[in-house]
Amino acid sequence: MTRAPAGSSAGGTSTTDGPPTAVGARLAGSSFLAACRGEAHERVPVWFMRQAGRSLPEYRAVRGPGSILDTVRDADLATEVTLQPVRRYGVDAAILYSDIMVPVGAIGFGVDIAPGVGPVVERPFSGPADLDRVRDLDPEADTPYVQATVRQLVAELDVPLIGFAGAPFTVASYLIEGRPSRDHACTKALMLGDPALFAQLLDRLATLALTTLRAQVTAGCSAVQLFDSWAGALSPADYRRHVLPHSRRVLEGVAALGVPRIHFGVGTGELLADMAAAGADVVGVDWRVPLSAARQRVGPGRALQGNLDPAACLAPWEAVARAARDVLAEGGGRGHIFNLGHGVLPETDPATLERLVELVHAFRPGGAGHGASAARAPQPRGA
Amino acid sequence: MTRAPAGSSAGGTSTTDGPPTAVGARLAGSSFLAACRGEAHERVPVWFMRQAGRSLPEYRAVRGPGSILDTVRDADLATEVTLQPVRRYGVDAAILYSDIMVPVGAIGFGVDIAPGVGPVVERPFSGPADLDRVRDLDPEADTPYVQATVRQLVAELDVPLIGFAGAPFTVASYLIEGRPSRDHACTKALMLGDPALFAQLLDRLATLALTTLRAQVTAGCSAVQLFDSWAGALSPADYRRHVLPHSRRVLEGVAALGVPRIHFGVGTGELLADMAAAGADVVGVDWRVPLSAARQRVGPGRALQGNLDPAACLAPWEAVARAARDVLAEGGGRGHIFNLGHGVLPETDPATLERLVELVHAFRPGGAGHGASAARAPQPRGA
Repeated sequence: MTRAPAGSSAGGTSTTDGPPTAVGARLAGSSFLAACRGEAHERVPVWFMRQAGRSLPEYRAVRGPGSILDTVRDADLATEVTLQPVRRYGVDAAILYSDIMVPVGAIGFGVDIAPGVGPVVERPFSGPADLDRVRDLDPEADTPYVQATVRQLVAELDVPLIGFAGAPFTVASYLIEGRPSRDHACTKALMLGDPALFAQLLDRLATLALTTLRAQVTAGCSAVQLFDSWAGALSPADYRRHVLPHSRRVLEGVAALGVPRIHFGVGTGELLADMAAAGADVVGVDWRVPLSAARQRVGPGRALQGNLDPAACLAPWEAVARAARDVLAEGGGRGHIFNLGHGVLPETDPATLERLVELVHAFRPGGAGHGASAARAPQPRGA
Repeated sequence: MTRAPAGSSAGGTSTTDGPPTAVGARLAGSSFLAACRGEAHERVPVWFMRQAGRSLPEYRAVRGPGSILDTVRDADLATEVTLQPVRRYGVDAAILYSDIMVPVGAIGFGVDIAPGVGPVVERPFSGPADLDRVRDLDPEADTPYVQATVRQLVAELDVPLIGFAGAPFTVASYLIEGRPSRDHACTKALMLGDPALFAQLLDRLATLALTTLRAQVTAGCSAVQLFDSWAGALSPADYRRHVLPHSRRVLEGVAALGVPRIHFGVGTGELLADMAAAGADVVGVDWRVPLSAARQRVGPGRALQGNLDPAACLAPWEAVARAARDVLAEGGGRGHIFNLGHGVLPETDPATLERLVELVHAFRPGGAGHGASAARAPQPRGA
């Protein structure tokens, strides 16, 4: 990673901009941004959800044993761990080191990220009286370290920086359940039993997500991802009735900023069309749905991101490569951002991700591009 | 539940039988069996996965604090807890009180069901040397209590008794991970990294499942369900390549017994056609896929089972009823066995399930049957 001169805080990615800024010029050839926008791109861009984190020895070396929230609040440290995977892997995008629970923690709801557990809420949301605990974010007062991290990163990076927020439903699930949940039972009971209160909560969380994303983009992020990680726990009817309107408000609210909007969840095979319709430029897909099927569901004019099974990365390299080539073939090489179907598992060997990036970069759709890169890339299997 | 005279151990459900036995005569009008077979049935049959268990006060009263394996090994106790939900709810089928890990525990693999955790394996499967630990079941020597429970139940019940087994993949996941897992990472790493060994393991587990189901049917079960609870963690390609052939061997192996075969998993929207093709008469569907969509995927000639979200049962009654009516409307009233999309959650109020059974029994497709039952049933919402 070479250090580049600091650019404007706008990230230069808005299509409504005037002359490109320094950053904009640097990112003009970004395959990631081109793929997000459905424009031509020579190679398939690749990054990995949770590319920064426990799978990297350099991450473990700089991080203490405490809450990851401490790392997020330290702009220098957050900058460093965001850069680590970009340096090591040569991925086509960086993603801000943060957590979807940072904003709701920053407004004082009482959230910690317990090591080995995940988000834990001291006093879960349980009734109307708790609504007042979900106020809007004042980014400069509540999360100055986030914007500082973004500005430092934009000054360093020569690939786009992705900002992100938790979608209203997924954040609500943590607030209501109080911890990670397999069934989301309390959340669904509230959603079905008191839809008006549930809508008020999601409305507030939509505002929070919108403010979060706007602050990140204003500070320099070139794309945003809305993580509705647990939306796949819902039936399509419940998703459309109780969740989609709030996610739409977030995604449509950032549309004017001119940066690509990625919308992602796990187990969302039945929801892909709705998640696209909510206002996504790019729909994230987990490994359960072949990308060709996903493309039919989201329709034309939208890119896809995904979808190698993260667990596949624990297999020997030849098996990883075979699975990755299947993903690339399904993606068709255009309007496709290669990623895992969910976050990097902590036990993943970084060497595997390194080789994956090489494999993806060597891929050319239709097999035509394999010529020049064949020496570096493993042979395609049938595809 | 009235006590009925003991019938033959064949359950009388085989279509290749001669004159119906006492049990066969008793079950001749079973709406559950008719729906499984795609035959005409007046009302939609209903039962609940995990209908016996922690949600029932009478269950908690008779069960000690120990492992549920102790209860399974006590035929009188297992009989009693199997009967409890049939008595209370008037469901149209009983399901043997047991666990998918019983057979593999009975052959000495070293399995316990830890309260609040699930199956825990003392020495997980980690290599070829462990294959010999997965021998076939000798039902009379290894699980005499299971067949004894089945025989006692068949003597008591006037609804069909469903036997069951864990599908090879799901049982393998527990054996390999050593405990319940969100990612099934070790399982997939073995599947992709050493497919030959993985196939050997699944082959043995298929034999085990087949022997298990045969023994249950011989003892009197009138239907079987193959639980591939975690198959939905796989991509369709991986499912077809590494799992389907083994599940098919189980399902096709029980075909000759003439009892309906239900094939169920969670999050299997992309796998429904394959799970049907594996040899199912009935495909279990979780709440993520509307039954009308599921019906298209499994094709004609197969019944569906499901698919109310178990978490919906924690909502106030009117919300439960609305969700249940949506399921009934989607199911179309024919070739549909009403169930939850997964097991009853422990915190479910039994009164809710009781009302659900009434609601399902009062339903008539097309609204025509609402006349006579309208006084008991809540009004349909649009459907």
